[in-house]
Amino acid sequence: MASAVDVVQQIGDTAGVFAFAVSGALLAVRKDFDVFGIAVLAAATALGGGIVRDLIIGRIPPDAFTDLDYLYVSLLAAALVALWRPPRETGRWYRRTRRLRLTRWLDIADAIGLGLFCVFGTRTAYEHGLGAPSAALLGLVTAVGGGVIRDLLAQRTPMILRHDTDLYALPALFGSVVTAILLHENWYRGWTALPAAAVAIVFRLLALRYHWRAPRARGSLPR
Amino acid sequence: MASAVDVVQQIGDTAGVFAFAVSGALLAVRKDFDVFGIAVLAAATALGGGIVRDLIIGRIPPDAFTDLDYLYVSLLAAALVALWRPPRETGRWYRRTRRLRLTRWLDIADAIGLGLFCVFGTRTAYEHGLGAPSAALLGLVTAVGGGVIRDLLAQRTPMILRHDTDLYALPALFGSVVTAILLHENWYRGWTALPAAAVAIVFRLLALRYHWRAPRARGSLPR
Amino acid sequence: MASAVDVVQQIGDTAGVFAFAVSGALLAVRKDFDVFGIAVLAAATALGGGIVRDLIIGRIPPDAFTDLDYLYVSLLAAALVALWRPPRETGRWYRRTRRLRLTRWLDIADAIGLGLFCVFGTRTAYEHGLGAPSAALLGLVTAVGGGVIRDLLAQRTPMILRHDTDLYALPALFGSVVTAILLHENWYRGWTALPAAAVAIVFRLLALRYHWRAPRARGSLPR
Repeated sequence: MASAVDVVQQIGDTAGVFAFAVSGALLAVRKDFDVFGIAVLAAATALGGGIVRDLIIGRIPPDAFTDLDYLYVSLLAAALVALWRPPRETGRWYRRTRRLRLTRWLDIADAIGLGLFCVFGTRTAYEHGLGAPSAALLGLVTAVGGGVIRDLLAQRTPMILRHDTDLYALPALFGSVVTAILLHENWYRGWTALPAAAVAIVFRLLALRYHWRAPRARGSLPR
Repeated sequence: MASAVDVVQQIGDTAGVFAFAVSGALLAVRKDFDVFGIAVLAAATALGGGIVRDLIIGRIPPDAFTDLDYLYVSLLAAALVALWRPPRETGRWYRRTRRLRLTRWLDIADAIGLGLFCVFGTRTAYEHGLGAPSAALLGLVTAVGGGVIRDLLAQRTPMILRHDTDLYALPALFGSVVTAILLHENWYRGWTALPAAAVAIVFRLLALRYHWRAPRARGSLPR
Repeated sequence: MASAVDVVQQIGDTAGVFAFAVSGALLAVRKDFDVFGIAVLAAATALGGGIVRDLIIGRIPPDAFTDLDYLYVSLLAAALVALWRPPRETGRWYRRTRRLRLTRWLDIADAIGLGLFCVFGTRTAYEHGLGAPSAALLGLVTAVGGGVIRDLLAQRTPMILRHDTDLYALPALFGSVVTAILLHENWYRGWTALPAAAVAIVFRLLALRYHWRAPRARGSLPR
């Protein structure tokens, strides 16, 4: 049974790494970085959250440095993004729709990574002896940490902080808490991981679709 | 005796966490972040320095992830800042004084966190077996680390680096060195922690009041 | 024999720390930071890569916090840079050449640090039981980590990501891989470290001289 859980986690982790790496690589292309910049941003986005989690829970060296397969998956994603040439057309209208579609792809890739990482991050922390609330917190760190590192490296304000972006941290927190409850109640199995991740992914995609946003402070301060 | 030291440290740590969390939350409101941004910036400012210190001295998982009370204190501070509505008035003059007052609150909150964290950070590192000079260095890291993380997340140049800000690192270094000497000479008691913190806090507030600033390099370089 | 290796590594590490600290301090002067900013940027550039490597391989506390000599070397470099006054002349042409020369000094200091750190970083990771590919990866992290931290603190896009900078990560990767092969084949001696570092340094300097740059992605995306 544990083995089935591990197989699901390995496949899910790989998919999450790939999705986040694509999101990092796409931002690097947008920022006009070179191929090393694309590779670094892909790897940092995909592996950063897990590395921070591993340092915190004491899994040292972090998985990403002992099992280089995750690094290779993110470099593969970086290479695909770097080599991919978007269909060239002319006209303002075309460029406008292309922009929309690319943004959407990046968002979907990111949502999948988010959902998978909050679940598997929570489970990894729980397996290393942290309590359920701490494990949920670390699931959140795993899920959003890579994106924060990506944004800092690319010198933009981290997406999770800004008020003009759709809900991002809340879906991850939701998925982490659901997973922590499953683990705490001993209901966590290989297959229960997937609906937990799906809940977070769907929540995030709905937030994107309907532009659900978090409120700001009641008062405002001068800049 | 040790127990009294621990009680003082716990109260002091809690006050420092609250003060730093307020400083992070106020910056987040200024930057117009949403409630998650306010919560993240509050927690990162309040807990960031201690987490870095714990990773370095090998207290893994860091205290902030095993004892979630500090997280809850910083989330409480974030909630208070987010819900607080400054008195609304009109007129340029009013806005001008309000701006001054808010800046001052943020600075005072920050100074209190700075003074408490340099003392307790030094003590924690010393208790974990580091020598007195290393412990003082880690006290400095504990005190200024959260602020650096806050500024990087909010995409502004860290306050401790800029020449147009009043002395910040020096008061923390002073408090850390005083604490390291107290520890090394075996003079550190629960009550000696408070004057050591007070020295750093007063030093910082005087630097703010009289705009004491650090010199720059003798020569200048083209940007 | 091992002792000779260690002596070479200690001298090389010290030279690398000094070179990187100069590079960090020069950027701080350019950014008009105060003396604390110069000291922090020098130390973060010089020690940051090694600290990250040590946290990852589990050498806790990191060397930089137990053996403060490296910190003192970087503070000495910071003091020299802060006290140094470039010869003052007038005229646009003079300023132009001065700018070129200062940029070159910074680049040479940085190249030396890069070459030494990729070799000694790889060796340190290998000695801590990581496999040769992981050790090479950590050599790369050691070499480029300090520069990334320097750039993030100074609020500029990390040099290794940008397409308009000469090859930086590739020389470090090359030096790391050569070192990992030497270690894996048991050919690593005290004196073999120096040609490995020299290869990376010369590669980097040639990249600077002839403006070798990495390609960008085939397609471009809207910002």
